[in-house]
Amino acid sequence: MPPAETTVTLPKAEIPRSWYNVLPDLPEPLEPYLTPDGQPVKPEMLAPIFPEALIEQELSPKPRFDIPEPVLETLARWRPTPLTRAAGLEKALGVRSRIWFKNESVSPSGSHKSNTAMAQAYYNKAAGIKRLATETGAGQWGTALSIAGQAFDLNVRVYMVRISLEQKPGRKTVMNLMGAEVLSSPSDLTEAGRKAKAENPGTLGTLGLAISEAVEDAASRPDTNYSLGSVLNHVLLHQTIIGQELKKQFKAGGIKPDYLVACHGGGSNFGGMAVPFVPEIKDGAKISLIAAEPESCPSLTRGKFAHDFGDAAGLTPMLPMYTLGKDFQPPAIHAGGLRYHGASPIVSALVKSGMVKPEAIGGPELFRYASLFARTEFIVPAPESAHALAAACMKALELEQAGKPGDIVFVLSGHGLLDLSAYEDFINTY
Amino acid sequence: MPPAETTVTLPKAEIPRSWYNVLPDLPEPLEPYLTPDGQPVKPEMLAPIFPEALIEQELSPKPRFDIPEPVLETLARWRPTPLTRAAGLEKALGVRSRIWFKNESVSPSGSHKSNTAMAQAYYNKAAGIKRLATETGAGQWGTALSIAGQAFDLNVRVYMVRISLEQKPGRKTVMNLMGAEVLSSPSDLTEAGRKAKAENPGTLGTLGLAISEAVEDAASRPDTNYSLGSVLNHVLLHQTIIGQELKKQFKAGGIKPDYLVACHGGGSNFGGMAVPFVPEIKDGAKISLIAAEPESCPSLTRGKFAHDFGDAAGLTPMLPMYTLGKDFQPPAIHAGGLRYHGASPIVSALVKSGMVKPEAIGGPELFRYASLFARTEFIVPAPESAHALAAACMKALELEQAGKPGDIVFVLSGHGLLDLSAYEDFINTY
Repeated sequence: MPPAETTVTLPKAEIPRSWYNVLPDLPEPLEPYLTPDGQPVKPEMLAPIFPEALIEQELSPKPRFDIPEPVLETLARWRPTPLTRAAGLEKALGVRSRIWFKNESVSPSGSHKSNTAMAQAYYNKAAGIKRLATETGAGQWGTALSIAGQAFDLNVRVYMVRISLEQKPGRKTVMNLMGAEVLSSPSDLTEAGRKAKAENPGTLGTLGLAISEAVEDAASRPDTNYSLGSVLNHVLLHQTIIGQELKKQFKAGGIKPDYLVACHGGGSNFGGMAVPFVPEIKDGAKISLIAAEPESCPSLTRGKFAHDFGDAAGLTPMLPMYTLGKDFQPPAIHAGGLRYHGASPIVSALVKSGMVKPEAIGGPELFRYASLFARTEFIVPAPESAHALAAACMKALELEQAGKPGDIVFVLSGHGLLDLSAYEDFINTY
Repeated sequence: MPPAETTVTLPKAEIPRSWYNVLPDLPEPLEPYLTPDGQPVKPEMLAPIFPEALIEQELSPKPRFDIPEPVLETLARWRPTPLTRAAGLEKALGVRSRIWFKNESVSPSGSHKSNTAMAQAYYNKAAGIKRLATETGAGQWGTALSIAGQAFDLNVRVYMVRISLEQKPGRKTVMNLMGAEVLSSPSDLTEAGRKAKAENPGTLGTLGLAISEAVEDAASRPDTNYSLGSVLNHVLLHQTIIGQELKKQFKAGGIKPDYLVACHGGGSNFGGMAVPFVPEIKDGAKISLIAAEPESCPSLTRGKFAHDFGDAAGLTPMLPMYTLGKDFQPPAIHAGGLRYHGASPIVSALVKSGMVKPEAIGGPELFRYASLFARTEFIVPAPESAHALAAACMKALELEQAGKPGDIVFVLSGHGLLDLSAYEDFINTY
């Protein structure tokens, strides 16, 4: 018989009304973004591709930003998201620790990406923009922005990394169904795309290159802005709704977390979970923040801290972050959302200060833990989220061995129903 | 800006504690099931493939059955399911009627099928059974039973209709991930399968034939029972949790439904919604019950009422139902769950008495309404459920033309994230 399920839910009235800005609370001020010739980036330089409200959120030291009412109403369609105890998983692992997951897969797009997509679409619409250009790796972000485009009446074009498009054709179908145009990146429609194809006709594409294409698209059309699904401060800001809800759920459920775990690609899911806990950790709270990244694209554990471009073509500002270099070509892993050479400047600063511990996860145990989760919790995790759940399982086993069971919380950032080729490969191999 | 969403949710404590048995409340008693030589089927004849508890539920006139505690605990993982007003859809259609959908897609399998899968797995496990054999069309039922097998520790083998397996390979991956074995039907492992292949090597398979294979498998092994996802009385019984929740939600939300709409394949989703309303309709309540079936497999609207086999090979009892004949070969429509020659005896009796109105739905407008729903409600409907939502939209437009807006409620029996080939074909064609 299945173990009884425990879920900490919050009423709609408990949805946070503002986003938390970690910038003023960072251990050290964030280093400025730089132009290619080493000058600090000025806000007006970002105006060709971002609306003013998002530029302010990117750079401001204001401690909080109110969530606009139409965004709140939209978030209320699926938020607050549940925090569920994975009792079946605990039993299967044979651990006494409690393992909890914050289930962001219940959003319309099936991932946490909808949290910022709705906000970005709202601000762009309010600024009179008609059309958004963006990139997507595994497709979670492109799906989220396509839906947000429908919600706030904007046209959306998505440059999707070629290898991900081939692995996950269903993603294109969903984005098309949601009214978006989807192109394989590199495409022939941009200078950056044509150059990449000329240099390497067989390229699988990368997130960095798809970003170049979308930025070029947006910069070349006055009716179009660019929209980014991760990395930048304003994206993490919108995702803080995750960590803020977690705090309330910990209180409501009597949970004292020892570990907070999320996967890390560009950093929005991890940052959204983690940064609301920065003030209490600075005040001495014993919470370990674990960023689970893929072994094959280990920007936090193996990259160097430097100013580097956010994209492959060098069209973006240079960001202070851990980076494998803008030309790094990650292998064709299924967790397409984690195939990024760089990292969020905020998360990078927290790693540099020692407040966040990155861990690289890979190999067959990744999908073994994901399968165990599927069979005990009846949810197919996204390959990205599988990194977090594998790290959480390993922590639970470590605590068991040390005889010190605790509370481990991870973010299930998305479901994997549109990433099944990953599981097919796993089932056929092991 | 998106219209604010209204959802009627119920607390966990409001999950119905018993199933409602419509048998004693039918306008006329159900005609008996017959053996091929015309004798009434006796309960013990069903014992080789069903546990005693389910045979009792199939034939008993008891007005209610208590839901066992372990089944309730499992259902509480996702129930009660929300009843949501599709305000965006209403706006897009330009109607003043309120359109509501009961969202069964939030279950672990993504459809209403989990409601009975969990119950059937529980009773089989309790009876000492080790293994279940079943069929599946589009894969919703096979997925639900695979998950229920994990929940109650049973092995599961699924005979999946060949055309559906080819259209939806992701379904097999999910069932495999959930520990089930999946075979293309007709297979070489059963007499029925070998015979069908010999007679028609290119056959696409049918639900009726896959049922024959699963029944033969179960009848030939003492550790194995057969499990059916629709048609039979005990399956509809378990699905009455849908209609019972709806009643409470109507009361909580001040909703007086003019139309209750669900799609109809074997009848479990439609019956689960509809039959709890039979007593009040008998007492004069003005509620129209609409069964939306596919034009291409129109058992209720074009079939004849007769005793016919539930499967292609004639291994099951002969059921009193509307049928297109056990050898009917429906075309390869995407709504694989509706490709069934027969119909639930209970629903058939209600159609015969005039209490349920069947309507055949088809053509490109089916997916046009489904797309409209996806773009306004941000959920991709299963092709089966699209029949119900299309019928609901047409009713709303009719009421608008007549100047009499009302409340229309349909069941979103499942999501379509594992049925994307249907939408890909639609997008490429229209």
